[in-house]
Amino acid sequence: MAKDEKSRIMNEIVSLCKRRGFVFQSSEIYGGINSCWDFGPLGVELKNNIKRDWWREMVQLRDDVEGLDAAILMHPKVWEASGHISEFTDPLVECLNCHRRFRADEISGDKCPVCGSDKLTEPKMFNLMFKTFIGPVESDENVIYLRPETAQGIYVNYQNVMTTMRQKIPFGIAQIGKAFRNEISPGNFIFRSREFEQMEMQFFVHPDDAERWFEYWRQQRWNWYLSLGIDGGKIHWHQHGPDELAHYAKDAYDIEFDFPFGRKELEGVHNRGDFDLSRHKEFSGKNLEYSDNVSGEKYIPYIIETSGGVDRCALAVLVDAYTVEPEKSNPQKMRTVLKMHPRLSPIKVGVFPLVKKEGMPEIAREIAQELRKKFMVFYDEKDSIGRRYRRQDEAGTPFCVTVDGQTLQDNTVTIRERDTLIQVRTKIDEIAPMIEKYIENWERDKGIF
Amino acid sequence: MAKDEKSRIMNEIVSLCKRRGFVFQSSEIYGGINSCWDFGPLGVELKNNIKRDWWREMVQLRDDVEGLDAAILMHPKVWEASGHISEFTDPLVECLNCHRRFRADEISGDKCPVCGSDKLTEPKMFNLMFKTFIGPVESDENVIYLRPETAQGIYVNYQNVMTTMRQKIPFGIAQIGKAFRNEISPGNFIFRSREFEQMEMQFFVHPDDAERWFEYWRQQRWNWYLSLGIDGGKIHWHQHGPDELAHYAKDAYDIEFDFPFGRKELEGVHNRGDFDLSRHKEFSGKNLEYSDNVSGEKYIPYIIETSGGVDRCALAVLVDAYTVEPEKSNPQKMRTVLKMHPRLSPIKVGVFPLVKKEGMPEIAREIAQELRKKFMVFYDEKDSIGRRYRRQDEAGTPFCVTVDGQTLQDNTVTIRERDTLIQVRTKIDEIAPMIEKYIENWERDKGIF
Repeated sequence: MAKDEKSRIMNEIVSLCKRRGFVFQSSEIYGGINSCWDFGPLGVELKNNIKRDWWREMVQLRDDVEGLDAAILMHPKVWEASGHISEFTDPLVECLNCHRRFRADEISGDKCPVCGSDKLTEPKMFNLMFKTFIGPVESDENVIYLRPETAQGIYVNYQNVMTTMRQKIPFGIAQIGKAFRNEISPGNFIFRSREFEQMEMQFFVHPDDAERWFEYWRQQRWNWYLSLGIDGGKIHWHQHGPDELAHYAKDAYDIEFDFPFGRKELEGVHNRGDFDLSRHKEFSGKNLEYSDNVSGEKYIPYIIETSGGVDRCALAVLVDAYTVEPEKSNPQKMRTVLKMHPRLSPIKVGVFPLVKKEGMPEIAREIAQELRKKFMVFYDEKDSIGRRYRRQDEAGTPFCVTVDGQTLQDNTVTIRERDTLIQVRTKIDEIAPMIEKYIENWERDKGIF
Repeated sequence: MAKDEKSRIMNEIVSLCKRRGFVFQSSEIYGGINSCWDFGPLGVELKNNIKRDWWREMVQLRDDVEGLDAAILMHPKVWEASGHISEFTDPLVECLNCHRRFRADEISGDKCPVCGSDKLTEPKMFNLMFKTFIGPVESDENVIYLRPETAQGIYVNYQNVMTTMRQKIPFGIAQIGKAFRNEISPGNFIFRSREFEQMEMQFFVHPDDAERWFEYWRQQRWNWYLSLGIDGGKIHWHQHGPDELAHYAKDAYDIEFDFPFGRKELEGVHNRGDFDLSRHKEFSGKNLEYSDNVSGEKYIPYIIETSGGVDRCALAVLVDAYTVEPEKSNPQKMRTVLKMHPRLSPIKVGVFPLVKKEGMPEIAREIAQELRKKFMVFYDEKDSIGRRYRRQDEAGTPFCVTVDGQTLQDNTVTIRERDTLIQVRTKIDEIAPMIEKYIENWERDKGIF
């Protein structure tokens, strides 16, 4: 696909996100704030569905992973130990003519990309952590940072979690939470923003077992993206070469996705060795060694990390689901539909009265209210039935239930499936079990009817 | 109850929270960071259960409330419009002798409460918003704040949400998210911390309907706390007097809870009038009036706000549930148990082999793995069965399943209920439906068996 075409598709997706209430620009009425985003009614449901699915897979279904929710504000020593204060920097160049600032590696040639001046400062290292002050005095000793990653909250709690939950190595700690990076050049919609949400799991292992667990978690994480219904042809492994490896990493693979703006990282699976706990041991003075009560061995555990972005995952789901295809009934016209896994769909079912009379709205409202006990429901009685279907197609809603004349006779409704467009009639009390069965058995490109 | 006794109970609850993995001090291995807290494996489940319940009640079950997840970092003009830049301050006094700082209203008499000096500065107004800089330059034009409340994210998105979700007034927007306040004197464990989580709903109404909706939401919110199983005798209404009313409020009630450290606010239900949208209209220059398509009337909607704290709610649930009572089998000994609503319990079921032999651990592990598909499960085979029961009592786990000799004969297990301590035998495949039924029908101080 040509670059222009990809860029056009990306613009259409951004536009759909705004139009249907997935994503709004933050503080839009004030002109927006660069690279921060607000998730609208559909966006928050999509993100919650992704997070819930991850938590179920990584915590609830497992005996060997515990959950955690650490604070965003941490002791500043944490970032000395982690290396973020000294290492988490980008080279910054300022144009002495127009005073605009750029990341040094974005400048091709020695000229300002805006005004063309060749008077540029030498690159200066700029730390990407947001800095603030705790307490009323803005002095060096009161500096704290917004965490640039959630991982450190896990490392500093590793002994607390292990002890209270009576875990033994090997075991993991999982966390979902916000992190902040003062990027010089954020971009690509919600892909790289200054405020973002991570879902991370850190797995503590004996050094001799690290390689085996690394392979295990690579497989698990890959399978999870497939289980979300994402097209396997669009995700890829990327192994970090010697030049790319972070200072702490022994081996690192990223799961990448083919976004319209390029192949980009969704999640990293990294073997971090004993770097993290060794550093925290050194900087805190606390003994963070693990004592194996059976063998008597003492050691600093190795850590296998799986670190994914919630916003990136949501964007991949949207991009993957985005489909424009000829309408079945009228192939001259196109319909836009988000063919996402129904487990992730923000709204599970739209409920409509065919017309706004003859008692149909009342029955439809009753059905909607009953279905709300189990699902997110959207009731709609405005415009033609065709337009209402199309709105739900754009929202990724897998089912639409319509109350019509026959409903008044025999308590049946039509259910229309989003992907195949097949409609069947069913009894009102069979709607909920049918939807549950459909969600459970859904497979890409297959209908249920 | 005497003050000392209350203080002792609070200390016991704090200690239980650490011991069982509900709450850890943030960055504890570095000596901690004042008034930030990390939620451990049980704490994150408790908070998630509260948030999920609130969301179901406030968003999923309703036709007239939409969800939102706005960014923590917002345009600085938002805080000018809201009045936070000029009004969100505390008076700060410094001792000129020992240089410690205090909130002026905490000083009784004119002396430093630490060193006793009478040389104090005049009170100076200190803004409670955490300030940072966006982009690489720390200049005034790049100042941004961590939001001190989630409400403003809702106001600035009111038109976006209304339009995309095809809502009409009256309707509401609900949001759960973090907020930050640089309190001079935080305290009372997780009750008042510098980083905290809010669950807020802002309901937009015609000015003439404001009083009716205010009463409606007061009732709804009160009932919600009761539905969590919180003792109705421990919650109270507090109406703000003329001196307490915020500058924006027309009328305000708080729901307060009897904590061991005093009667304190859980949630505010406030009639904010048209203050918020009028200010954002003025500061953004955008027309935020609502046009009623039926009557043709244009007006700035009034806002009824329900604003609760997730951490405070979790603490109230813990305090309310905390029980020390004589053991039934041995009344000389005391057992500690968290008698919380099982819907909120972090772990729904503990699964134990009676002894670590004769194949019992294998069967118990199989049962645990099957139950994990529906519930959070804790498998435990260490120590005597009595100690394992007591650990789960302290965690608030409503059910413990034990595999014993008879299980090997007839596929039955014992289920022990946390509050009544009654044990019944049941078939393995009846465990899950029994737990589901129990959770649905649970009432305070009543068992199911």
